[in-house]
Amino acid sequence: MPSQPSKELETFQNPHPGRDYEIVITAPEFTSLCPVTGQPDFGTITVNYVPGPRCIELRSFKLYLWSYRQEGAFYEDVTNRILNDLVEAAAPVKMTVTGDFNVRGGISTKVIARHGY
Amino acid sequence: MPSQPSKELETFQNPHPGRDYEIVITAPEFTSLCPVTGQPDFGTITVNYVPGPRCIELRSFKLYLWSYRQEGAFYEDVTNRILNDLVEAAAPVKMTVTGDFNVRGGISTKVIARHGY
Amino acid sequence: MPSQPSKELETFQNPHPGRDYEIVITAPEFTSLCPVTGQPDFGTITVNYVPGPRCIELRSFKLYLWSYRQEGAFYEDVTNRILNDLVEAAAPVKMTVTGDFNVRGGISTKVIARHGY
Amino acid sequence: MPSQPSKELETFQNPHPGRDYEIVITAPEFTSLCPVTGQPDFGTITVNYVPGPRCIELRSFKLYLWSYRQEGAFYEDVTNRILNDLVEAAAPVKMTVTGDFNVRGGISTKVIARHGY
Amino acid sequence: MPSQPSKELETFQNPHPGRDYEIVITAPEFTSLCPVTGQPDFGTITVNYVPGPRCIELRSFKLYLWSYRQEGAFYEDVTNRILNDLVEAAAPVKMTVTGDFNVRGGISTKVIARHGY
Amino acid sequence: MPSQPSKELETFQNPHPGRDYEIVITAPEFTSLCPVTGQPDFGTITVNYVPGPRCIELRSFKLYLWSYRQEGAFYEDVTNRILNDLVEAAAPVKMTVTGDFNVRGGISTKVIARHGY
Amino acid sequence: MPSQPSKELETFQNPHPGRDYEIVITAPEFTSLCPVTGQPDFGTITVNYVPGPRCIELRSFKLYLWSYRQEGAFYEDVTNRILNDLVEAAAPVKMTVTGDFNVRGGISTKVIARHGY
Amino acid sequence: MPSQPSKELETFQNPHPGRDYEIVITAPEFTSLCPVTGQPDFGTITVNYVPGPRCIELRSFKLYLWSYRQEGAFYEDVTNRILNDLVEAAAPVKMTVTGDFNVRGGISTKVIARHGY
Amino acid sequence: MPSQPSKELETFQNPHPGRDYEIVITAPEFTSLCPVTGQPDFGTITVNYVPGPRCIELRSFKLYLWSYRQEGAFYEDVTNRILNDLVEAAAPVKMTVTGDFNVRGGISTKVIARHGY
Amino acid sequence: MPSQPSKELETFQNPHPGRDYEIVITAPEFTSLCPVTGQPDFGTITVNYVPGPRCIELRSFKLYLWSYRQEGAFYEDVTNRILNDLVEAAAPVKMTVTGDFNVRGGISTKVIARHGY
Repeated sequence: MPSQPSKELETFQNPHPGRDYEIVITAPEFTSLCPVTGQPDFGTITVNYVPGPRCIELRSFKLYLWSYRQEGAFYEDVTNRILNDLVEAAAPVKMTVTGDFNVRGGISTKVIARHGY
Repeated sequence: MPSQPSKELETFQNPHPGRDYEIVITAPEFTSLCPVTGQPDFGTITVNYVPGPRCIELRSFKLYLWSYRQEGAFYEDVTNRILNDLVEAAAPVKMTVTGDFNVRGGISTKVIARHGY
Repeated sequence: MPSQPSKELETFQNPHPGRDYEIVITAPEFTSLCPVTGQPDFGTITVNYVPGPRCIELRSFKLYLWSYRQEGAFYEDVTNRILNDLVEAAAPVKMTVTGDFNVRGGISTKVIARHGY
Repeated sequence: MPSQPSKELETFQNPHPGRDYEIVITAPEFTSLCPVTGQPDFGTITVNYVPGPRCIELRSFKLYLWSYRQEGAFYEDVTNRILNDLVEAAAPVKMTVTGDFNVRGGISTKVIARHGY
Repeated sequence: MPSQPSKELETFQNPHPGRDYEIVITAPEFTSLCPVTGQPDFGTITVNYVPGPRCIELRSFKLYLWSYRQEGAFYEDVTNRILNDLVEAAAPVKMTVTGDFNVRGGISTKVIARHGY
Repeated sequence: MPSQPSKELETFQNPHPGRDYEIVITAPEFTSLCPVTGQPDFGTITVNYVPGPRCIELRSFKLYLWSYRQEGAFYEDVTNRILNDLVEAAAPVKMTVTGDFNVRGGISTKVIARHGY
Repeated sequence: MPSQPSKELETFQNPHPGRDYEIVITAPEFTSLCPVTGQPDFGTITVNYVPGPRCIELRSFKLYLWSYRQEGAFYEDVTNRILNDLVEAAAPVKMTVTGDFNVRGGISTKVIARHGY
Repeated sequence: MPSQPSKELETFQNPHPGRDYEIVITAPEFTSLCPVTGQPDFGTITVNYVPGPRCIELRSFKLYLWSYRQEGAFYEDVTNRILNDLVEAAAPVKMTVTGDFNVRGGISTKVIARHGY
Repeated sequence: MPSQPSKELETFQNPHPGRDYEIVITAPEFTSLCPVTGQPDFGTITVNYVPGPRCIELRSFKLYLWSYRQEGAFYEDVTNRILNDLVEAAAPVKMTVTGDFNVRGGISTKVIARHGY
Repeated sequence: MPSQPSKELETFQNPHPGRDYEIVITAPEFTSLCPVTGQPDFGTITVNYVPGPRCIELRSFKLYLWSYRQEGAFYEDVTNRILNDLVEAAAPVKMTVTGDFNVRGGISTKVIARHGY
């Protein structure tokens, strides 16, 4: 089954919908391109959420992150866009997305966006 | 005394029932099978609880975790099922079960389910 | 001056009774015997308290912990008993005793008991 | 494009103004001069903020920190001045600036200043 | 300029009196004598405070800590005395002093005293 | 493509046969059964080798390790057997296999077997 | 000055050719594609060399590593190819290239290739 | 099967006698009594050996270490005695025993004894 | 006594000239300017030497490193120049100078130069 | 039994004189005075030796180190003097003394002196 980068996020039915529980997904292999210089950026994306009716399917989330590989993306914007896309796909009770980006010019940057708090 | 994997959880009488205290059990040798690919998954199960009338007997908990060794189990489901089984067996005042699963496809996943909070 | 294991805890007068301050005592050399198998158990006992009229004398606390060396002791029970003995000896404003016990059967256990919270 | 140290901070329009999210910038290469002895001081400056209408542009922040390289600066004062300058430039909803300075005379010092809390 | 151990603490005017900010001073080279055995004790003194009208001058604080080098000092007492002396000298809005003392007899001790909370 | 545990190791042609270089493979998810008690054992298998005409194919090595999941295996024996099987399959110039097994009865064990040194 | 991924490595004249000294370059942001699945791989490339007449220019080495971003590359092959390209470009007295690749299928791999030893 | 502390070390036949391989056993729960003060000492015993005709059986080694629990033992002597007893029981090709003992009086001690080097 | 950056290194007479012993000096606060971009570089300079007739005076070495603060310096060159200057000043039996420079463009660099080996 | 700082080192008879084994003593609570400024210095003294006819008695070594508390001592000199005193007292087969001293002026220093190598 060939895999392709894709912005489509798949979900599956929450197996325990009657309970508020947390899921934390850590993806340390995020890479995109700097929109200003065109050079690669690297970082770790962490998603922390309380699922609503549906959970995020991990393989599709991997392909989703892959889809940023050749795209330009500002740190502040991409972290919020990932949050928006995940919220739209899975309608979580609440969700936090953290983008922790590698040192550039001696400075590292982290962006933390929340939905439903 | 031969040991066997078993879903039966044993408990013993809480020796200090008049006080709300916490017990934290950390089991870093949990393994089950992925229901999709059939391949082994690995993780750490942590149980944090305030005991009610009974405490969880550790040897039976070890055999209980062993019982997942050849079973298919989704991360989100198995963490909640362990919580349900422990709550049914020991009726704790409150309990958290955390499943912290190893990297698959460059992504690691943690599931945190709570009862009685 | 010969030292002997002893269950008697000595205390001294709190030198600053007008202020609520914390004292944290960490004893990583606790050992007792498993009441089921008779084999040695090992762990770290941590005491965190706000003193009342009296403070716990450290040398007597060391001899007190030593007194468990050849005694059978369940994790849940011994942590609560240490708390009870310290509370009786020193009447703290509040106190937490934590017993953090080494891996047995691939599982480690921590017990956290509080008084006065 | 030649770079110069500069006290002018540039900002850009917050790409997600409708959501309160956090940005954390860590700059471990801050250096200034001790106003008393004239000798170099070293530290890490961390900025944690919820952006208002505008975000801090990272390259200009790097040049801003560089501008302290040959200036005398007391720890307590410089941390607050950086906060003041960033607040004036970007009008954040809230912001914390932390200056964590290296050991001098066997003692290390951290200064934490907050705006909007 | 010869330096001498001294109980006199110097202060300087708070450069940003209109804002509640924190200063954390970490001094890992504290040593005094045990009042019972006369032998050296070692520990780390940490001061965390919100300055009032005046800040603690670091060089004088170093000489102040040095003044305990040949003095007998109980852990519980010396931590509270340092807090009292700093409060008297600088009238902070609030202050915490922590004394974290090295292992003696297999046991380590930490004392945490607060003013103004 | 369904995966199955298998003792068959696949290899591929060494892409740089003219140079002595090292390959280090670290597999922290090894599990077998204790031949005495029947209970699960866990450990990390590390293979360090200089390839001869052929290199070890990683996916088949994963399936090979999986084949021990329901087998009894003594630490000393299984480490040497893995070395023998890898040597037979790939004829390396030299190879070290290390089995680093988890704590049992308060004791951890590591076995290091070498070929061609 | 726009940057582009490029296989051309630039060098500069060794400023101290009369002395055998070592240079260690660590590049933790290497990424290529798996030639079998097409999915991204990630790793750290470390180069350790004693320069001959010329040293490796770091900016061009960054662009060189970038050139693998959309290329298929086996771990064993790419590590040796990087060594070959660097040796051809800079004629070092001796050089080691290490590729330390992230976990795939629960297994991580490191390849260490040497020239001139 | 009741367990008792015992100085008798059991061994089993080396399953791979034709190869020189290493076995490392780490036992962090060693405790004995100080022959001078009678108070408990604690440490980690590590055994590193190349087996001869026989290997050390781990359960009996655990009971062997337990046998020191109520015995007086100087660090230098006990490390060498453990080496002597293991050499006599298993006739290793070579063996190192390390005793790494906890801080006493602000000083920690390690003893490393070798046989067959 | 005002301090100034200075290229003059002071030395003092080796107090134990009859014995070959090592001195290791670690200076994590080195900063210079990039000769290409003019921007600040940061790193740690470590000196490891066996003294000959004279030892390096530490205060003068601090002022010596300070003298690079506003100078352009390539990593490879500055590490060798520091070695040359120290060798000329102190005539050590042997000496290693290591420059460990911070990440630039996702890549960190270390230079290790030796004299007398 | 009152303890006093003392330059007299006591020894005891080597319990296993027929074997060359190592003893490592780590003392992280060394403090003396800087001979230039008179201010306290702090460091860790490590002694690594193969005993000859006699071993170093630890309690007397503690009192010996204490004897430097109010003495001026240069790093290079004191490390060698401790080695000389220990060699004279215990006539070891070989011995290394390491003095690892805390940061002063942003620079830390280690001195390593050997006898009998």
